[in-house]
Amino acid sequence: MAAIEDLVGELSKLPGIGRKTAQRLTYHLLQQPRERMNRLARVLDTVAERVASCPECGNFCEGERCAICSDSRRDGSVLCVVEEASAVGQVERSTTYKGRYLVLGGRLSPLEGVGPEQLRIGLLRHRVGAGEVREVILATNPSLEGEATATFVHQLLAGMGVRVSRLARGLPVGGDLEYIDGVTLSHALEARQEVP
Amino acid sequence: MAAIEDLVGELSKLPGIGRKTAQRLTYHLLQQPRERMNRLARVLDTVAERVASCPECGNFCEGERCAICSDSRRDGSVLCVVEEASAVGQVERSTTYKGRYLVLGGRLSPLEGVGPEQLRIGLLRHRVGAGEVREVILATNPSLEGEATATFVHQLLAGMGVRVSRLARGLPVGGDLEYIDGVTLSHALEARQEVP
Repeated sequence: MAAIEDLVGELSKLPGIGRKTAQRLTYHLLQQPRERMNRLARVLDTVAERVASCPECGNFCEGERCAICSDSRRDGSVLCVVEEASAVGQVERSTTYKGRYLVLGGRLSPLEGVGPEQLRIGLLRHRVGAGEVREVILATNPSLEGEATATFVHQLLAGMGVRVSRLARGLPVGGDLEYIDGVTLSHALEARQEVP
Repeated sequence: MAAIEDLVGELSKLPGIGRKTAQRLTYHLLQQPRERMNRLARVLDTVAERVASCPECGNFCEGERCAICSDSRRDGSVLCVVEEASAVGQVERSTTYKGRYLVLGGRLSPLEGVGPEQLRIGLLRHRVGAGEVREVILATNPSLEGEATATFVHQLLAGMGVRVSRLARGLPVGGDLEYIDGVTLSHALEARQEVP
C-alpha cells in the first residue's frame, strides 16, 4: 500500500516520531473522516505558502513584518536576542516583556558548522547601530553553545554604547532543591537576594 | 499568526501529541525547506483520496481489493480475525502466517456503544459460510474487550463446521520473569510444553 507507506515515511521524519508512532498516527488518521486528513493538508500548504521570516527580527511572520515588529506599543529601546523563533513565544508567555526581539536563527556550534555568518549577526548590528536600542537582553539557552553565543554577541556589542544584560540564573519556580544541578545552585547562591 | 496556530491546533488533535509537541513539530517543519510541508500535504491528500476499505476483509486498500486478498498464493482455508487493520501489519511481520484476514473494525465494548452491528460480523459470517475457510484464528487483543470479542465470535461460529483457534498466551520472547504479570504466568504454566 504505497500511499499509506509514504505517509508513514513522511511522518517518521519528524523529530521524536519513530516508525511505530508514525504508523499509529497514520492508522489514527485513517480511522477519522477523510476531511481530517484534507484539513491537515490544507493547513500545511497554507503555512508553507504564507509564513516567511520577518525582515526586522527574523521571527516567523505571515505578513510583511511580524505582529511584534508591527506593534507600535512595543518598546523599541529594549532588544531581546533569542536563538530560535520558538523562544519568542516562550518569552511572550511570561507577559512581562514589552520590548522587541531579534531571532539569531541558531547558536554558534563549530561542530555543526554554524559560525557567525550562519546567524543573523548582521541584522543585529544593524538594529543596534540604528540607535534606538539602549539595552540588549541575551536570552540564549543556558547550554554550552547558548553561552558561547551569548559571549560572542556580548563582545560584538562592546563599544556600541548599549547596555547588555542576561537572563538571571537560579532556581526554577516550583522546582525541588533535591533535583537542581550543582551549577544552577551555585548560580542561585552567588546571585542570592537579601530578604528585606 | 493564524496559519501557524492552525497547524499547531491540527497536530495537537493527533493521539499522543499535546500542545507542546505540536508546537515543536510546527517549528521543526518551519525550519525545513517549504517543500517538506507541501510533500506531507500531498501524501495526506493522496491517502485521503485513495485509501478505502477492502470489501473482502475490511483492511485498508488502495485498489479494489487489498494486496493480501488479491494475492492468489495466500491460503484461503485459514482466516485470521483481528480487531483493527493495524494488527494485519503486526501479524504479517511475523512472516509465518500465509492465510487470509478479516478485520472486525473494533472490539465489543458496551461502554463505548460498540455492539456486534458496529463490527464486520456479517462479513465474517459470509466469508465462513462461503465454505472455503476451514480454520478461524482469533487474534483479538489480550484485553478484557478483546477476550469478550473472541468469545462472541467463537459462539457465533459454533456449528458452522470450522475449527476455531486462538493465539497462544505465554511469556513474550525477550521478556523478564520479574516483570510478567500473574495472569500471563498462569497461562504460561498451564500451557507448559514438555522438553523433548
